[in-house]
Amino acid sequence: MLWGVARRRKTPTRLVFASNLRKERVAQELSQEALAEQAGLHRTYVGSVERGERNISVDNMERLAEALKLSLVDLLDGC
Amino acid sequence: MLWGVARRRKTPTRLVFASNLRKERVAQELSQEALAEQAGLHRTYVGSVERGERNISVDNMERLAEALKLSLVDLLDGC
Repeated sequence: MLWGVARRRKTPTRLVFASNLRKERVAQELSQEALAEQAGLHRTYVGSVERGERNISVDNMERLAEALKLSLVDLLDGC
Repeated sequence: MLWGVARRRKTPTRLVFASNLRKERVAQELSQEALAEQAGLHRTYVGSVERGERNISVDNMERLAEALKLSLVDLLDGC
């Protein structure tokens, strides 16, 4: 277990993004691996983003939104 | 001049965030310094975010939105 990652504070925005990301990915019947490949990111990284463990950057949020053919605002809905 | 910073690719989302951030800061009659202090960030960092030079993290976007009493979705309007 990566304690250094897991112990980071999960901020409200991270958790909303994480929840929306997972919901949209599942709705589009994509695996974490398939989404990661589309976005040019690593599968384990996408998994940790979906758990709110990562302080993800705006560029990577954009890549994930594009991979899901959504706007970033959609993925932050509820923030 | 910090070439390492300035040469980074300015993605569309960065530029929308940058533009909205500056617009809202000016509308609230705050200096970059005052906003930075409110958000717990450095003045020069806020300046570079407003120029789209930074691959800002979700936690820092949240801090800036909170400092402006806005939701992050407002600051990403147009993405």
